[in-house]
Amino acid sequence: MCRLVSDLSIVRNAHIVLASAACAGRVRIVNDQLGLKARVVHPAAEFAPSPSTAPNDFFVCERARAQAMDVFWRAGAPFHAKHGQVPSLVVGVDTVVRLGDEVLEKPTSISDARAMLQKLSDAGTHHVQTGVALIYGGAESGAPHVHTFLEETSVRFASLSPEQIEAYINTGEPMDEVGAYGIQGLGGTFVTAVQGDFHNAVGFPLARFCDEVDIDRLRGWIDATLPPEVPCMAAIGSTAEDDASFADIPGIECEDDECGLPSD
Amino acid sequence: MCRLVSDLSIVRNAHIVLASAACAGRVRIVNDQLGLKARVVHPAAEFAPSPSTAPNDFFVCERARAQAMDVFWRAGAPFHAKHGQVPSLVVGVDTVVRLGDEVLEKPTSISDARAMLQKLSDAGTHHVQTGVALIYGGAESGAPHVHTFLEETSVRFASLSPEQIEAYINTGEPMDEVGAYGIQGLGGTFVTAVQGDFHNAVGFPLARFCDEVDIDRLRGWIDATLPPEVPCMAAIGSTAEDDASFADIPGIECEDDECGLPSD
Repeated sequence: MCRLVSDLSIVRNAHIVLASAACAGRVRIVNDQLGLKARVVHPAAEFAPSPSTAPNDFFVCERARAQAMDVFWRAGAPFHAKHGQVPSLVVGVDTVVRLGDEVLEKPTSISDARAMLQKLSDAGTHHVQTGVALIYGGAESGAPHVHTFLEETSVRFASLSPEQIEAYINTGEPMDEVGAYGIQGLGGTFVTAVQGDFHNAVGFPLARFCDEVDIDRLRGWIDATLPPEVPCMAAIGSTAEDDASFADIPGIECEDDECGLPSD
Repeated sequence: MCRLVSDLSIVRNAHIVLASAACAGRVRIVNDQLGLKARVVHPAAEFAPSPSTAPNDFFVCERARAQAMDVFWRAGAPFHAKHGQVPSLVVGVDTVVRLGDEVLEKPTSISDARAMLQKLSDAGTHHVQTGVALIYGGAESGAPHVHTFLEETSVRFASLSPEQIEAYINTGEPMDEVGAYGIQGLGGTFVTAVQGDFHNAVGFPLARFCDEVDIDRLRGWIDATLPPEVPCMAAIGSTAEDDASFADIPGIECEDDECGLPSD
Protein backbone atom coordinates (compact mmCIF):
# COMPACT_ATOMS: atom_id res chain seq x y z
CA MET A 1 0.00 0.00 0.00
CA CYS A 2 1.43 3.31 -1.04
CA ARG A 3 1.39 5.48 2.05
CA LEU A 4 3.81 8.01 0.78
CA VAL A 5 1.50 10.60 -0.74
CA SER A 6 -0.35 11.04 2.54
CA ASP A 7 2.98 11.36 4.36
CA LEU A 8 4.78 13.42 1.78
CA SER A 9 5.75 16.16 4.21
CA ILE A 10 7.65 13.60 6.30
CA VAL A 11 9.93 12.48 3.47
CA ARG A 12 10.23 15.97 2.07
CA ASN A 13 11.49 17.23 5.42
CA ALA A 14 13.89 14.36 5.93
CA HIS A 15 17.61 14.71 5.25
CA ILE A 16 17.91 12.25 2.40
CA VAL A 17 21.09 11.34 0.58
CA LEU A 18 20.93 9.49 -2.74
CA ALA A 19 23.94 7.20 -3.04
CA SER A 20 24.05 6.75 -6.78
CA ALA A 21 26.28 6.81 -9.79
CA ALA A 22 25.54 9.64 -12.21
CA CYS A 23 22.03 9.07 -13.57
CA ALA A 24 20.03 12.13 -14.56
CA GLY A 25 16.79 10.20 -14.95
CA ARG A 26 17.02 8.77 -11.44
CA VAL A 27 17.69 12.14 -9.85
CA ARG A 28 14.80 13.65 -11.78
CA ILE A 29 12.38 11.01 -10.45
CA VAL A 30 13.54 11.45 -6.86
CA ASN A 31 13.87 15.22 -6.72
CA ASP A 32 11.55 16.57 -9.42
CA GLN A 33 8.79 13.98 -9.64
CA LEU A 34 8.62 12.99 -5.98
CA GLY A 35 9.74 16.43 -4.82
CA LEU A 36 12.42 15.34 -2.38
CA LYS A 37 15.49 17.45 -1.80
CA ALA A 38 17.94 14.57 -1.81
CA ARG A 39 21.62 15.35 -2.00
CA VAL A 40 23.39 13.10 -4.50
CA VAL A 41 26.67 11.51 -3.46
CA HIS A 42 28.54 9.21 -5.82
CA PRO A 43 29.78 6.05 -4.16
CA ALA A 44 33.37 4.99 -4.60
CA ALA A 45 33.71 2.68 -7.59
CA GLU A 46 35.65 0.08 -5.64
CA PHE A 47 32.56 -0.77 -3.63
CA ALA A 48 30.99 -2.38 -6.63
CA PRO A 49 31.41 -6.16 -6.56
CA SER A 50 32.20 -7.23 -10.09
CA PRO A 51 29.00 -8.58 -11.67
CA SER A 52 31.01 -11.07 -13.70
CA THR A 53 31.92 -12.86 -10.49
CA ALA A 54 28.37 -13.02 -9.15
CA PRO A 55 25.80 -12.78 -11.93
CA ASN A 56 22.82 -13.64 -9.77
CA ASP A 57 19.65 -11.77 -8.93
CA PHE A 58 21.04 -10.46 -5.69
CA PHE A 59 24.34 -8.87 -6.55
CA VAL A 60 22.65 -5.64 -7.63
CA CYS A 61 21.08 -5.37 -4.16
CA GLU A 62 24.39 -6.22 -2.57
CA ARG A 63 26.10 -3.55 -4.60
CA ALA A 64 23.42 -0.95 -3.81
CA ARG A 65 23.91 -1.79 -0.14
CA ALA A 66 27.71 -1.59 -0.29
CA GLN A 67 27.53 1.73 -2.09
CA ALA A 68 24.93 3.12 0.31
CA MET A 69 27.10 2.04 3.25
CA ASP A 70 30.12 3.75 1.72
CA VAL A 71 28.16 6.96 1.31
CA PHE A 72 26.53 6.63 4.74
CA TRP A 73 29.91 6.62 6.43
CA ARG A 74 31.62 9.11 4.18
CA ALA A 75 28.76 11.58 3.87
CA GLY A 76 27.94 11.33 7.55
CA ALA A 77 30.83 13.49 8.69
CA PRO A 78 30.33 16.60 6.55
CA PHE A 79 26.58 16.22 6.85
CA HIS A 80 26.86 16.12 10.64
CA ALA A 81 29.16 19.12 10.65
CA LYS A 82 26.61 21.10 8.69
CA HIS A 83 23.30 19.85 10.07
CA GLY A 84 24.25 18.56 13.53
CA GLN A 85 22.98 15.09 12.69
CA VAL A 86 23.59 12.21 10.33
CA PRO A 87 21.30 11.86 7.28
CA SER A 88 17.80 10.56 8.06
CA LEU A 89 18.00 8.17 5.16
CA VAL A 90 20.62 7.12 2.66
CA VAL A 91 19.10 5.58 -0.48
CA GLY A 92 21.55 3.44 -2.41
CA VAL A 93 20.45 2.57 -5.93
CA ASP A 94 22.12 0.46 -8.55
CA THR A 95 20.75 -0.61 -11.92
CA VAL A 96 21.87 -3.18 -14.46
CA VAL A 97 20.51 -4.68 -17.64
CA ARG A 98 20.21 -8.46 -17.62
CA LEU A 99 20.20 -10.66 -20.68
CA GLY A 100 19.92 -14.19 -19.35
CA ASP A 101 23.04 -14.70 -17.25
CA GLU A 102 24.79 -11.76 -18.80
CA VAL A 103 24.97 -8.39 -17.08
CA LEU A 104 25.26 -5.19 -19.09
CA GLU A 105 26.53 -2.05 -17.39
CA LYS A 106 27.68 1.23 -18.92
CA PRO A 107 29.70 0.54 -22.06
CA THR A 108 33.44 1.06 -21.79
CA SER A 109 33.99 1.85 -25.46
CA ILE A 110 32.14 2.56 -28.69
CA SER A 111 32.57 -1.04 -29.81
CA ASP A 112 31.25 -2.22 -26.44
CA ALA A 113 28.18 0.01 -26.91
CA ARG A 114 27.71 -1.29 -30.44
CA ALA A 115 27.87 -4.90 -29.24
CA MET A 116 25.38 -4.23 -26.41
CA LEU A 117 22.84 -2.59 -28.71
CA GLN A 118 23.16 -5.46 -31.18
CA LYS A 119 22.53 -7.96 -28.38
CA LEU A 120 19.47 -6.06 -27.13
CA SER A 121 18.15 -5.84 -30.68
CA ASP A 122 18.69 -9.55 -31.28
CA ALA A 123 17.18 -10.59 -27.94
CA GLY A 124 13.92 -8.66 -28.36
CA THR A 125 13.23 -8.66 -24.61
CA HIS A 126 15.61 -7.97 -21.75
CA HIS A 127 15.28 -7.11 -18.07
CA VAL A 128 16.26 -4.07 -16.08
CA GLN A 129 17.06 -4.82 -12.46
CA THR A 130 17.39 -2.16 -9.81
CA GLY A 131 18.64 -2.89 -6.32
CA VAL A 132 17.76 -0.40 -3.62
CA ALA A 133 19.24 -0.17 -0.14
CA LEU A 134 17.63 2.07 2.46
CA ILE A 135 19.85 2.98 5.41
CA TYR A 136 18.08 4.88 8.17
CA GLY A 137 20.02 7.11 10.52
CA GLY A 138 18.84 5.06 13.45
CA ALA A 139 17.22 7.59 15.77
CA GLU A 140 15.87 5.05 18.21
CA SER A 141 18.37 2.28 18.49
CA GLY A 142 21.46 4.30 17.85
CA ALA A 143 22.33 1.91 15.07
CA PRO A 144 21.69 2.41 11.36
CA HIS A 145 18.99 0.13 10.02
CA VAL A 146 19.38 -1.42 6.56
CA HIS A 147 16.64 -2.65 4.25
CA THR A 148 17.12 -3.74 0.65
CA PHE A 149 14.83 -4.77 -2.20
CA LEU A 150 15.01 -5.68 -5.85
CA GLU A 151 12.70 -4.53 -8.65
CA GLU A 152 12.72 -5.99 -12.15
CA THR A 153 11.12 -4.67 -15.33
CA SER A 154 10.90 -6.41 -18.71
CA VAL A 155 11.68 -4.27 -21.72
CA ARG A 156 10.76 -5.09 -25.32
CA PHE A 157 13.37 -3.61 -27.61
CA ALA A 158 13.01 -2.82 -31.31
CA SER A 159 14.96 -4.69 -33.96
CA LEU A 160 17.67 -2.28 -35.10
CA SER A 161 19.66 -2.19 -38.30
CA PRO A 162 23.45 -1.55 -38.14
CA GLU A 163 22.75 1.92 -39.56
CA GLN A 164 20.32 2.70 -36.75
CA ILE A 165 22.80 1.52 -34.14
CA GLU A 166 25.52 3.72 -35.65
CA ALA A 167 23.18 6.70 -35.82
CA TYR A 168 22.26 6.24 -32.16
CA ILE A 169 25.91 5.85 -31.12
CA ASN A 170 26.68 9.08 -32.98
CA THR A 171 24.21 10.96 -30.77
CA GLY A 172 26.62 10.33 -27.87
CA GLU A 173 23.84 9.08 -25.60
CA PRO A 174 24.80 5.38 -25.26
CA MET A 175 28.13 5.91 -23.50
CA ASP A 176 26.51 7.33 -20.37
CA GLU A 177 23.84 4.67 -20.08
CA VAL A 178 23.57 1.24 -18.49
CA GLY A 179 22.98 -1.22 -21.33
CA ALA A 180 24.05 1.51 -23.81
CA TYR A 181 20.61 3.10 -24.14
CA GLY A 182 18.69 5.74 -22.23
CA ILE A 183 14.99 4.91 -21.98
CA GLN A 184 14.32 8.49 -20.87
CA GLY A 185 16.19 9.85 -23.89
CA LEU A 186 16.39 8.96 -27.57
CA GLY A 187 16.80 5.33 -26.54
CA GLY A 188 13.14 5.49 -25.53
CA THR A 189 12.29 5.39 -29.24
CA PHE A 190 13.54 1.76 -29.30
CA VAL A 191 11.36 0.63 -26.39
CA THR A 192 8.12 -0.65 -27.84
CA ALA A 193 6.75 -1.89 -24.51
CA VAL A 194 7.64 -2.52 -20.90
CA GLN A 195 6.10 -4.92 -18.42
CA GLY A 196 6.46 -3.74 -14.84
CA ASP A 197 7.45 -0.42 -13.32
CA PHE A 198 8.65 1.92 -16.04
CA HIS A 199 10.33 4.22 -13.54
CA ASN A 200 12.44 1.26 -12.50
CA ALA A 201 13.73 0.99 -16.06
CA VAL A 202 14.74 4.65 -15.88
CA GLY A 203 16.67 3.84 -12.71
CA PHE A 204 14.40 4.33 -9.72
CA PRO A 205 11.49 2.05 -8.72
CA LEU A 206 9.16 4.85 -7.66
CA ALA A 207 6.02 2.98 -6.58
CA ARG A 208 8.00 0.28 -4.79
CA PHE A 209 10.09 2.88 -2.94
CA CYS A 210 6.87 4.47 -1.69
CA ASP A 211 5.75 1.07 -0.41
CA GLU A 212 9.05 0.13 1.17
CA VAL A 213 10.13 3.35 2.84
CA ASP A 214 9.43 3.19 6.57
CA ILE A 215 7.59 6.41 7.32
CA ASP A 216 7.36 5.73 11.06
CA ARG A 217 11.09 5.28 11.25
CA LEU A 218 11.62 8.57 9.40
CA ARG A 219 9.01 10.33 11.51
CA GLY A 220 10.72 9.20 14.69
CA TRP A 221 14.00 10.48 13.39
CA ILE A 222 12.65 13.87 12.43
CA ASP A 223 10.80 14.20 15.75
CA ALA A 224 13.95 13.55 17.73
CA THR A 225 15.19 16.86 19.03
CA LEU A 226 18.77 15.78 19.53
CA PRO A 227 20.56 13.37 17.26
CA PRO A 228 21.63 10.26 19.17
CA GLU A 229 25.14 8.93 19.28
CA VAL A 230 25.31 6.63 16.34
CA PRO A 231 28.23 4.39 15.40
CA CYS A 232 28.65 6.10 12.06
CA MET A 233 30.05 9.13 13.82
CA ALA A 234 33.07 7.06 14.72
CA ALA A 235 33.85 6.90 11.05
CA ILE A 236 34.18 10.65 10.62
CA GLY A 237 37.19 11.41 8.53
CA SER A 238 37.46 7.91 7.14
CA THR A 239 37.85 7.65 3.42
CA ALA A 240 36.34 5.24 0.97
CA GLU A 241 39.66 3.44 0.84
CA ASP A 242 39.69 2.90 4.61
CA ASP A 243 36.29 1.22 4.58
CA ALA A 244 36.94 -1.57 2.13
CA SER A 245 35.07 -4.04 4.30
CA PHE A 246 31.86 -3.19 6.12
CA ALA A 247 31.76 -6.56 7.81
CA ASP A 248 34.16 -5.23 10.46
CA ILE A 249 32.02 -2.26 11.43
CA PRO A 250 29.90 -2.99 14.50
CA GLY A 251 26.37 -1.89 15.14
CA ILE A 252 24.90 -2.38 11.67
CA GLU A 253 21.42 -3.78 11.91
CA CYS A 254 20.26 -5.45 8.69
CA GLU A 255 16.73 -6.48 7.89
CA ASP A 256 16.28 -9.99 6.58
CA ASP A 257 14.80 -8.99 3.27
CA GLU A 258 13.80 -10.61 0.04
CA CYS A 259 17.17 -10.02 -1.55
CA GLY A 260 18.45 -12.69 0.78
CA LEU A 261 21.47 -10.73 1.91
CA PRO A 262 22.93 -12.05 5.16
CA SER A 263 22.54 -9.88 8.21
CA ASP A 264 25.77 -8.38 9.47
CA MET B 1 11.08 -0.80 -37.62
CA CYS B 2 12.09 2.41 -35.95
CA ARG B 3 13.79 4.47 -38.64
CA LEU B 4 13.59 7.75 -36.85
CA VAL B 5 16.95 7.86 -35.05
CA SER B 6 18.83 7.47 -38.34
CA ASP B 7 16.65 10.20 -39.88
CA LEU B 8 16.53 12.48 -36.90
CA SER B 9 17.79 15.52 -38.79
CA ILE B 10 14.80 15.26 -41.15
CA VAL B 11 12.19 15.50 -38.41
CA ARG B 12 14.20 18.02 -36.44
CA ASN B 13 14.31 20.31 -39.47
CA ALA B 14 10.64 19.88 -40.29
CA HIS B 15 8.06 22.50 -39.35
CA ILE B 16 6.01 20.47 -36.90
CA VAL B 17 2.92 21.62 -35.06
CA LEU B 18 1.62 19.65 -32.11
CA ALA B 19 -2.16 19.93 -31.99
CA SER B 20 -2.78 19.08 -28.38
CA ALA B 21 -4.58 20.13 -25.26
CA ALA B 22 -2.29 21.32 -22.47
CA CYS B 23 -0.17 18.34 -21.42
CA ALA B 24 3.30 19.08 -20.08
CA GLY B 25 4.41 15.44 -20.19
CA ARG B 26 3.49 15.11 -23.86
CA VAL B 27 5.34 18.28 -24.86
CA ARG B 28 8.39 17.15 -22.88
CA ILE B 29 8.50 13.83 -24.77
CA VAL B 30 8.15 15.50 -28.17
CA ASN B 31 10.43 18.49 -27.68
CA ASP B 32 12.89 17.49 -24.94
CA GLN B 33 13.19 13.73 -25.29
CA LEU B 34 12.90 13.50 -29.07
CA GLY B 35 14.44 16.92 -29.60
CA LEU B 36 11.86 18.30 -32.02
CA LYS B 37 11.02 21.97 -32.06
CA ALA B 38 7.29 21.50 -32.38
CA ARG B 39 5.04 24.48 -31.87
CA VAL B 40 2.08 23.63 -29.65
CA VAL B 41 -1.36 24.82 -30.74
CA HIS B 42 -4.42 24.01 -28.66
CA PRO B 43 -7.35 22.79 -30.74
CA ALA B 44 -10.75 24.33 -30.28
CA ALA B 45 -12.73 22.41 -27.69
CA GLU B 46 -15.78 22.13 -29.94
CA PHE B 47 -13.92 19.75 -32.23
CA ALA B 48 -13.99 17.08 -29.59
CA PRO B 49 -16.82 14.60 -30.23
CA SER B 50 -18.34 13.78 -26.89
CA PRO B 51 -16.98 10.45 -25.72
CA SER B 52 -20.25 9.65 -24.02
CA THR B 53 -21.89 9.46 -27.42
CA ALA B 54 -19.26 7.22 -28.97
CA PRO B 55 -17.38 5.24 -26.35
CA ASN B 56 -15.63 2.93 -28.78
CA ASP B 57 -11.97 2.29 -29.48
CA PHE B 58 -11.92 4.71 -32.38
CA PHE B 59 -13.38 7.91 -31.06
CA VAL B 60 -10.05 8.97 -29.60
CA CYS B 61 -8.47 8.68 -33.08
CA GLU B 62 -11.40 10.50 -34.57
CA ARG B 63 -11.03 13.27 -32.05
CA ALA B 64 -7.26 13.52 -32.58
CA ARG B 65 -7.94 13.81 -36.29
CA ALA B 66 -10.65 16.45 -35.90
CA GLN B 67 -8.40 18.48 -33.60
CA ALA B 68 -5.40 18.15 -35.92
CA MET B 69 -7.53 19.28 -38.84
CA ASP B 70 -8.75 22.27 -36.89
CA VAL B 71 -5.19 23.26 -36.08
CA PHE B 72 -3.98 22.49 -39.61
CA TRP B 73 -6.36 25.00 -41.09
CA ARG B 74 -6.14 27.58 -38.35
CA ALA B 75 -2.37 27.41 -37.85
CA GLY B 76 -1.70 27.29 -41.57
CA ALA B 77 -2.34 30.98 -42.17
CA PRO B 78 -0.05 32.57 -39.58
CA PHE B 79 2.51 29.84 -40.15
CA HIS B 80 2.50 30.56 -43.88
CA ALA B 81 2.79 34.27 -43.25
CA LYS B 82 5.88 33.69 -41.15
CA HIS B 83 7.59 30.81 -42.92
CA GLY B 84 6.30 31.05 -46.48
CA GLN B 85 4.83 27.56 -46.33
CA VAL B 86 2.32 25.48 -44.41
CA PRO B 87 3.56 23.22 -41.59
CA SER B 88 5.34 20.06 -42.78
CA LEU B 89 3.42 18.00 -40.27
CA VAL B 90 0.61 18.58 -37.82
CA VAL B 91 0.53 15.94 -35.07
CA GLY B 92 -2.85 15.69 -33.36
CA VAL B 93 -2.82 13.77 -30.10
CA ASP B 94 -5.64 12.91 -27.75
CA THR B 95 -5.53 10.69 -24.67
CA VAL B 96 -8.25 9.16 -22.51
CA VAL B 97 -8.42 6.66 -19.69
CA ARG B 98 -10.72 3.70 -20.34
CA LEU B 99 -12.38 1.60 -17.67
CA GLY B 100 -14.43 -0.95 -19.58
CA ASP B 101 -16.97 1.10 -21.53
CA GLU B 102 -16.41 4.16 -19.42
CA VAL B 103 -14.19 6.99 -20.58
CA LEU B 104 -12.39 9.20 -18.06
CA GLU B 105 -11.15 12.60 -19.15
CA LYS B 106 -9.92 15.53 -17.05
CA PRO B 107 -12.07 15.87 -13.93
CA THR B 108 -14.49 18.77 -13.89
CA SER B 109 -14.60 19.13 -10.10
CA ILE B 110 -12.94 17.90 -6.93
CA SER B 111 -15.72 15.39 -6.37
CA ASP B 112 -15.32 14.19 -9.95
CA ALA B 113 -11.58 13.67 -9.34
CA ARG B 114 -12.32 11.85 -6.10
CA ALA B 115 -14.76 9.53 -7.85
CA MET B 116 -12.31 8.81 -10.68
CA LEU B 117 -9.45 7.96 -8.32
CA GLN B 118 -11.76 5.68 -6.32
CA LYS B 119 -12.79 3.88 -9.51
CA LEU B 120 -9.17 3.43 -10.63
CA SER B 121 -8.24 2.16 -7.18
CA ASP B 122 -11.16 -0.29 -7.16
CA ALA B 123 -10.53 -1.52 -10.69
CA GLY B 124 -6.85 -2.35 -10.18
CA THR B 125 -6.11 -2.22 -13.91
CA HIS B 126 -7.24 0.33 -16.49
CA HIS B 127 -6.19 1.33 -19.98
CA VAL B 128 -4.77 4.52 -21.40
CA GLN B 129 -5.65 5.09 -25.05
CA THR B 130 -3.95 7.66 -27.21
CA GLY B 131 -5.15 8.52 -30.68
CA VAL B 132 -2.67 10.18 -33.02
CA ALA B 133 -3.39 11.89 -36.31
CA LEU B 134 -0.54 12.86 -38.63
CA ILE B 135 -1.40 15.49 -41.24
CA TYR B 136 1.34 16.14 -43.77
CA GLY B 137 1.53 19.43 -45.62
CA GLY B 138 1.25 17.62 -48.91
CA ALA B 139 4.27 18.82 -50.89
CA GLU B 140 3.77 16.44 -53.77
CA SER B 141 0.09 16.06 -54.34
CA GLY B 142 -0.92 19.48 -53.22
CA ALA B 143 -3.33 17.84 -50.80
CA PRO B 144 -2.77 17.22 -47.10
CA HIS B 145 -2.37 13.55 -46.29
CA VAL B 146 -3.91 12.13 -43.12
CA HIS B 147 -2.83 9.04 -41.19
CA THR B 148 -4.15 7.99 -37.78
CA PHE B 149 -3.31 5.27 -35.28
CA LEU B 150 -4.28 4.14 -31.81
CA GLU B 151 -1.96 3.00 -29.02
CA GLU B 152 -3.18 1.39 -25.79
CA THR B 153 -1.30 0.78 -22.55
CA SER B 154 -2.49 -1.17 -19.51
CA VAL B 155 -1.84 0.43 -16.15
CA ARG B 156 -1.92 -1.36 -12.80
CA PHE B 157 -3.02 1.09 -10.14
CA ALA B 158 -2.45 0.83 -6.39
CA SER B 159 -5.31 0.35 -3.96
CA LEU B 160 -5.79 3.71 -2.29
CA SER B 161 -7.41 4.60 1.00
CA PRO B 162 -9.78 7.59 1.19
CA GLU B 163 -7.03 9.43 3.10
CA GLN B 164 -4.53 8.83 0.32
CA ILE B 165 -7.02 10.04 -2.29
CA GLU B 166 -7.65 13.21 -0.28
CA ALA B 167 -3.94 13.80 0.21
CA TYR B 168 -3.36 13.44 -3.53
CA ILE B 169 -6.25 15.74 -4.39
CA ASN B 170 -4.79 18.29 -1.99
CA THR B 171 -1.57 18.40 -4.02
CA GLY B 172 -3.61 20.01 -6.82
CA GLU B 173 -2.24 17.60 -9.44
CA PRO B 174 -5.40 15.61 -10.30
CA MET B 175 -7.41 18.50 -11.75
CA ASP B 176 -5.05 18.96 -14.71
CA GLU B 177 -4.82 15.29 -15.59
CA VAL B 178 -6.82 12.87 -17.72
CA GLY B 179 -8.20 10.22 -15.35
CA ALA B 180 -7.32 12.52 -12.41
CA TYR B 181 -3.74 11.34 -12.04
CA GLY B 182 -0.42 12.30 -13.62
CA ILE B 183 1.78 9.27 -14.22
CA GLN B 184 4.72 11.61 -14.78
CA GLY B 185 4.06 13.37 -11.48
CA LEU B 186 3.09 12.27 -7.98
CA GLY B 187 0.45 10.05 -9.56
CA GLY B 188 3.34 7.89 -10.74
CA THR B 189 3.67 6.66 -7.16
CA PHE B 190 0.32 4.85 -7.62
CA VAL B 191 1.36 3.04 -10.79
CA THR B 192 2.84 -0.29 -9.76
CA ALA B 193 3.23 -1.57 -13.33
CA VAL B 194 2.38 -0.87 -16.92
CA GLN B 195 2.07 -3.23 -19.86
CA GLY B 196 2.82 -1.57 -23.17
CA ASP B 197 4.38 1.74 -24.08
CA PHE B 198 4.88 3.82 -20.95
CA HIS B 199 5.31 7.02 -22.93
CA ASN B 200 1.84 6.42 -24.31
CA ALA B 201 0.49 6.51 -20.76
CA VAL B 202 2.17 9.89 -20.30
CA GLY B 203 0.39 11.09 -23.42
CA PHE B 204 2.60 10.43 -26.44
CA PRO B 205 3.31 6.99 -27.97
CA LEU B 206 6.97 7.66 -28.69
CA ALA B 207 8.13 4.37 -30.24
CA ARG B 208 4.97 4.01 -32.34
CA PHE B 209 5.26 7.58 -33.63
CA CYS B 210 8.80 6.80 -34.78
CA ASP B 211 7.46 3.79 -36.67
CA GLU B 212 4.46 5.55 -38.16
CA VAL B 213 5.90 8.89 -39.24
CA ASP B 214 6.56 8.90 -42.98
CA ILE B 215 10.13 10.12 -43.30
CA ASP B 216 10.08 10.07 -47.12
CA ARG B 217 7.03 12.28 -47.16
CA LEU B 218 8.71 14.73 -44.77
CA ARG B 219 11.97 14.61 -46.71
CA GLY B 220 10.16 15.43 -49.95
CA TRP B 221 8.48 18.33 -48.26
CA ILE B 222 11.69 19.75 -46.85
CA ASP B 223 13.52 19.26 -50.17
CA ALA B 224 10.91 21.23 -52.04
CA THR B 225 12.33 24.66 -52.71
CA LEU B 226 9.02 26.36 -53.23
CA PRO B 227 5.90 25.48 -51.31
CA PRO B 228 3.20 24.27 -53.69
CA GLU B 229 -0.32 25.63 -53.80
CA VAL B 230 -2.14 23.54 -51.26
CA PRO B 231 -5.84 23.64 -50.51
CA CYS B 232 -5.26 24.64 -46.92
CA MET B 233 -4.16 28.06 -48.07
CA ALA B 234 -7.73 28.63 -49.14
CA ALA B 235 -8.65 28.48 -45.51
CA ILE B 236 -6.45 31.40 -44.48
CA GLY B 237 -8.38 33.63 -42.18
CA SER B 238 -10.97 31.03 -41.34
CA THR B 239 -11.71 30.49 -37.72
CA ALA B 240 -12.33 27.34 -35.79
CA GLU B 241 -15.99 28.20 -35.75
CA ASP B 242 -16.10 28.38 -39.55
CA ASP B 243 -14.69 24.91 -39.97
CA ALA B 244 -17.18 22.96 -37.94
CA SER B 245 -17.37 20.24 -40.56
CA PHE B 246 -14.30 18.94 -42.35
CA ALA B 247 -16.34 16.66 -44.55
CA ASP B 248 -17.08 19.63 -46.80
CA ILE B 249 -13.47 20.58 -47.40
CA PRO B 250 -12.18 19.17 -50.70
CA GLY B 251 -8.77 17.70 -51.33
CA ILE B 252 -8.26 15.84 -48.06
CA GLU B 253 -6.60 12.51 -48.71
CA CYS B 254 -7.03 10.05 -45.84
CA GLU B 255 -5.14 6.82 -45.42
CA ASP B 256 -7.23 3.74 -44.69
CA ASP B 257 -5.70 3.01 -41.34
CA GLU B 258 -6.22 0.65 -38.47
CA CYS B 259 -8.44 3.04 -36.62
CA GLY B 260 -11.00 2.29 -39.26
CA LEU B 261 -11.90 5.89 -39.90
CA PRO B 262 -13.61 6.38 -43.24
CA SER B 263 -11.65 8.15 -45.95
CA ASP B 264 -12.98 11.55 -46.83
